[in-house]
Amino acid sequence: MRVTSFSGVDIPHFGSIIEPVELELAFQNDQSFISRFERSLKGKELQIAVLAPQDPSLQYSLQKILPPITMAVLSEQVRQLLPNRKITVRYRDTKCSSTDGPLAAFDFYINHTADVFLGPMCDYVIAPVARYAGRWGIPVLTPGAQAEAFRHKNQQYSTLTRLAGSYSLVGEGFSKILALFGWRHVALFYHNYAVGSGKGHSLCHFTLGTVFTALNSTPVYKSFDETQEDRIDFHGALKSIAAKARIVILCASPPKVRDILLAAEDLKMVSSGEYVFFNVELFTNLRKGYMPWHDANATDENNERAKRAYEALLTVTVRPPPDSTEYMAFDKQVKELALNKFNFSFGDEPVNPFVTAFYDAVILYATALNETLANGGSITNGTDITSRMWNKTFQGITGNVSIDSNGDRNADYSLLDMDPKSGAFHVVAHYSGKTKSIIEVANVSIHWPGGRTTWPPDTPKCGFDGSGCPSKSM
Amino acid sequence: MRVTSFSGVDIPHFGSIIEPVELELAFQNDQSFISRFERSLKGKELQIAVLAPQDPSLQYSLQKILPPITMAVLSEQVRQLLPNRKITVRYRDTKCSSTDGPLAAFDFYINHTADVFLGPMCDYVIAPVARYAGRWGIPVLTPGAQAEAFRHKNQQYSTLTRLAGSYSLVGEGFSKILALFGWRHVALFYHNYAVGSGKGHSLCHFTLGTVFTALNSTPVYKSFDETQEDRIDFHGALKSIAAKARIVILCASPPKVRDILLAAEDLKMVSSGEYVFFNVELFTNLRKGYMPWHDANATDENNERAKRAYEALLTVTVRPPPDSTEYMAFDKQVKELALNKFNFSFGDEPVNPFVTAFYDAVILYATALNETLANGGSITNGTDITSRMWNKTFQGITGNVSIDSNGDRNADYSLLDMDPKSGAFHVVAHYSGKTKSIIEVANVSIHWPGGRTTWPPDTPKCGFDGSGCPSKSM
Repeated sequence: MRVTSFSGVDIPHFGSIIEPVELELAFQNDQSFISRFERSLKGKELQIAVLAPQDPSLQYSLQKILPPITMAVLSEQVRQLLPNRKITVRYRDTKCSSTDGPLAAFDFYINHTADVFLGPMCDYVIAPVARYAGRWGIPVLTPGAQAEAFRHKNQQYSTLTRLAGSYSLVGEGFSKILALFGWRHVALFYHNYAVGSGKGHSLCHFTLGTVFTALNSTPVYKSFDETQEDRIDFHGALKSIAAKARIVILCASPPKVRDILLAAEDLKMVSSGEYVFFNVELFTNLRKGYMPWHDANATDENNERAKRAYEALLTVTVRPPPDSTEYMAFDKQVKELALNKFNFSFGDEPVNPFVTAFYDAVILYATALNETLANGGSITNGTDITSRMWNKTFQGITGNVSIDSNGDRNADYSLLDMDPKSGAFHVVAHYSGKTKSIIEVANVSIHWPGGRTTWPPDTPKCGFDGSGCPSKSM
Repeated sequence: MRVTSFSGVDIPHFGSIIEPVELELAFQNDQSFISRFERSLKGKELQIAVLAPQDPSLQYSLQKILPPITMAVLSEQVRQLLPNRKITVRYRDTKCSSTDGPLAAFDFYINHTADVFLGPMCDYVIAPVARYAGRWGIPVLTPGAQAEAFRHKNQQYSTLTRLAGSYSLVGEGFSKILALFGWRHVALFYHNYAVGSGKGHSLCHFTLGTVFTALNSTPVYKSFDETQEDRIDFHGALKSIAAKARIVILCASPPKVRDILLAAEDLKMVSSGEYVFFNVELFTNLRKGYMPWHDANATDENNERAKRAYEALLTVTVRPPPDSTEYMAFDKQVKELALNKFNFSFGDEPVNPFVTAFYDAVILYATALNETLANGGSITNGTDITSRMWNKTFQGITGNVSIDSNGDRNADYSLLDMDPKSGAFHVVAHYSGKTKSIIEVANVSIHWPGGRTTWPPDTPKCGFDGSGCPSKSM
């Protein structure tokens, strides 16, 4: 068993550090590290238990989410909300396993080391942990649990607060965006794991499933398994979609979206101006001046063709973080802390929405705990603390965060379009999860493909096969 | 909180009672009763934790399985295997809930009151409990967990021993039975919950799914939701099946099987002698002289017609218990104990296969524990004890019980046919899970429908539509 201790280290700080800080990392010999970080203060303690996988390839790995949690714990805001309270952060690797995750939660519970759980993140871990935590009366705050099942909190997930919206909210947002243009007739074309792969359905399946539900039905839906098929016949698939739809919602990895759009360009679907494609990017904050069509390994000619193809694409993402100095400082400090304390480099990727959500989770919990204490309650009353987090709007690191009366964040989504000159994507409208309405961005407009000045209809005037108009020869 | 205590009660006993026995029932105010039964002896303790639902409508409710567990604990056999060891049995109501079940297991674990788990029974409870118990090194013995997923024990269910076979074994047995008659081309017609009912798939779906797998494929499969549809169009369904198959495997509740066979009789499928029906009854021990066609509420005429219809039916069940005096005494004592100590009346139903399996579970565990102790091991070494239960054949209450090297019982199944004179079903052959072979019963033969002396082919000589033979007019 290796134990590494630091005392009084100079942690890069976002808020003020009030006291010398002690950071202690203990690697257990079972390979799942338990670690502890304490904001040393006299007085009572708040024990935060973080449950997430350690696999750095995941957007919500411990290495990525511990820095914002640390920063929130050290922030001026939390110091004011919870004066004279020692805060201890412990974390465990769930391995995204339905055995390891719940057993880690059990350990925290029996050792009385969890006043609140941050995470877990993987659905098969959240489900049991949030069920048990409900019985234990311990709040669970996670930007995961976006599936529909987690919306039902009376029976099963009574202390679960969802910090990053849900797939069904994406569906609602999409239907509002489509309604802007009078589109009801759309096709869904997305990545899903093949039947028999043992992997269940993909996130794309769940996400677009809510679009299907929100629209009541949809004329065409097709899926492909991007992990199994090397060369998928996108030409053939697009031709069959073209026989039934003009508006196509895609969900796949960025390289596959590029392949699909290149195939569409090849089929003259882009230059005709008759087609509009959407794609969905929920788990990344897009870099400023994002150019998804550009592939460093492709030829200039191929990139030029891809750029033309992307003229027909609109992208739906989580609302991008603000450009503020405060947010820039946050982004920078997260990366420094990750590198210095968790040996992880973000590279030049912007921090993702899970990172900001975990910062906000600490602020929200501290706000609610402060209220519970002010009302004579105790830190052990997780049900009361949970109820104070619901139906609340507060200032998070990316702006206002609104939690609805069911304990789910009214997440905002944005619609991005490409400037055909620069090739960079920029926001043209937002969807507000709170007001359920579209807010258009002033002084920008969507560039429609094929030289159109306005959007195409979802059904061609003469029908998909032209049979709706009299033949010219008549 | 009500507490009822008995001391030195005269429990009806199957084996010898060695010492005065203490039975204590404590009803917790959360409605989930925790109870304790002890075979009081000086010396070290064996703590048995029973996890099952309390709902008496279920075949494996606590009221039905605690009597055989009690009797096994008190038996001469266990006394000899574990001399000088106090045995405490505690039980908890899992409510078949994926929250209550695991939390009950967790309570046993943290209180150090489980050397072994008997149960749980419901799949959604077994899955987490068996995962956690594997990590805790606590053996789990259950006649549940018949689904395919529980076969894989290396990763997830390392201490799970399955006492009542599995659906895949039923599939194997069925394919051997069908092969006896050269039948490969069959139809499956069964109860399944409707999509959107939120109930997932039925046991019939899982059971017949293994037949599908064992046969590689099947020409026709149709399902109906017997819980939702009051009047199902069995005539229509049978007509469409008749266009594609002659051998039909049914799985449904006994009244629905009767409805289907009456419809078949009406369509002359029985009198033609061309059709053979099977049904599957895995969870009940059929009464001696079982007459499933008889409905006390039906007219004599209807019952006569049903009896004729059942001439076309063969039934696959778990192998019935023996007629021995020992087994009769067991059956009687289970019922007396259930009535006297657990306030539950079996009525005149035979005890079901889960009841006998729990008796056997205690014998098997005690045998393995005895071996572990004799080899210098300890009761806390659940992995060693588990390995000694696997690849073992022992004398259970219904005869030899064989556990394979994967820790799954080589369950036996039986084929029953109706004597057309008496109307009673009787065993005509057994399938041995251990030898994977059919054992025909001497001096009995199957009565084929429609006056045939031998079985019909699975495909009519002239094809299903008669087109395979030259027309008579030619």
